[in-house]
Amino acid sequence: MTMLFQRMAIAGVGLIGGSLAQAVKERKVVGEVVGVGRNEERLKRAFEAGIIDSYTTRMNDSLGTVDLMVIATPVCMIADLVETMVPFLKEGTVITDVGSVKKEIVEQVEGFIPDTLHFVGGHPIAGTENSGFEHSCSTLFEDRKCILTPVESTNQQALKQVQELWSRVGSNVVCLHCNEHDEILAAVSHLPHMVAYGMVNCLLTIEGFEENIFSFSAGGFKDFTRIAGSDPAMWRDIALMNRDKLLLMIKRFQSYLDELKEAIEQRDSEKLFSEFQKSRTFKQLMK
Amino acid sequence: MTMLFQRMAIAGVGLIGGSLAQAVKERKVVGEVVGVGRNEERLKRAFEAGIIDSYTTRMNDSLGTVDLMVIATPVCMIADLVETMVPFLKEGTVITDVGSVKKEIVEQVEGFIPDTLHFVGGHPIAGTENSGFEHSCSTLFEDRKCILTPVESTNQQALKQVQELWSRVGSNVVCLHCNEHDEILAAVSHLPHMVAYGMVNCLLTIEGFEENIFSFSAGGFKDFTRIAGSDPAMWRDIALMNRDKLLLMIKRFQSYLDELKEAIEQRDSEKLFSEFQKSRTFKQLMK
Repeated sequence: MTMLFQRMAIAGVGLIGGSLAQAVKERKVVGEVVGVGRNEERLKRAFEAGIIDSYTTRMNDSLGTVDLMVIATPVCMIADLVETMVPFLKEGTVITDVGSVKKEIVEQVEGFIPDTLHFVGGHPIAGTENSGFEHSCSTLFEDRKCILTPVESTNQQALKQVQELWSRVGSNVVCLHCNEHDEILAAVSHLPHMVAYGMVNCLLTIEGFEENIFSFSAGGFKDFTRIAGSDPAMWRDIALMNRDKLLLMIKRFQSYLDELKEAIEQRDSEKLFSEFQKSRTFKQLMK
Repeated sequence: MTMLFQRMAIAGVGLIGGSLAQAVKERKVVGEVVGVGRNEERLKRAFEAGIIDSYTTRMNDSLGTVDLMVIATPVCMIADLVETMVPFLKEGTVITDVGSVKKEIVEQVEGFIPDTLHFVGGHPIAGTENSGFEHSCSTLFEDRKCILTPVESTNQQALKQVQELWSRVGSNVVCLHCNEHDEILAAVSHLPHMVAYGMVNCLLTIEGFEENIFSFSAGGFKDFTRIAGSDPAMWRDIALMNRDKLLLMIKRFQSYLDELKEAIEQRDSEKLFSEFQKSRTFKQLMK
């Protein structure tokens, strides 16, 4: 297969950025990968680990030579970073991101992006509770969904190229409206993280929890602590950027929990059984 | 090491009962294991799988010859079953259970147990989301906590024997008051299960969830579905038997979630960061 891009730059060589760099090089989707970031020490280590081919901490240096610019920084920086880069990018450069929230980013970028540059919003659903390029791996995207959120004015050629980029690293690419993306992610990812953080912190308010009580926990709670070990800055940003849809989901969850609490209060054994059974049936269907 | 009991009977040859049977035989803690249950077909299969040495569906048959009676049935049946068994057990028989709720069981049993029989409440914290002897394994209890809940009148010799039983299958045995047991388990196990069921069922109320939305879920939510795949009858019984302590925990969790929701509403970025950081620090400490 032919190479898709000659030179790709990745701003933010973390878990996702680092894994994409490894994946596209291994599969010869991209000729060369430049790491872009603020922390030279970390970029150097990613370079020494063979994850990126070169690196820069200055935008004007080498951005004018790339055909693909991937923004893999924290979500709250993505749109501003694209804006800062615009003057340094050459005509026809494709820009995409990997942010877990899409509406705000896509709307902001569409507001300033010139016709000569082609932005395609994206989100590979492949995160883990770990972060940092040290955890990156070239197979991270295999058999995972990658959502792209083009708008009406999105350049069709650029969209096709970004679709192919993710397909060739093993992802199952789907296009959604950015609003729909944010609603779905609020449900399947953002709410579960808030609940996991909530569960761990709620138990931490019990006197003696850390020292004694935790040692009694088995499967159930340990899974929550794993999720709640996710990067706090990343999840603060996601919570704030997908605020409205996340709040709706939290309220929906709270109402359901009220229902469950009432069933326990009323000793409604039939209701409890049928509700728990519902979850199990779903799990079995989704296997 | 010497054999601890000559003949042990297990009422309820499921995940826990079946694993204990295998563990005590492999480690020569017990000479012979009799499976007791209502479903002859399943007992036969456990016998054919080599998990138990013999089986019976009738209490009067062989209970008079056992030195240790382990009750591993659903929690809501334990006390009644012990009461039914009392006339068939010989003097000096040690009786213990593996129920996830202790106060109600211990209090009920202490109410009717004759001085000639020795009951010790127990709970090996070793369940998984799977059930049935088909998932049992002889190493299930290794490096897991096992909580015993003796009362003032508990026979000390019987307590020692039950402690040794669990130690010799690899567990770390701890004695707690049954009230304390129920409080701790409400926090680290019963609440997390309610929340996992709640999360899955809450998302199931979203239109189109099953068919479409679930396919977008990654790590976070999938862990919840695993927990929410646990046996619905077992969790209905646990929720009802540990009702008061569980309700307190649900309320505590709801208040914390309200706090988190408010922080998101207020866009209180510092509060969100510090709360999420707290969970992460805890996870790192507990590694």
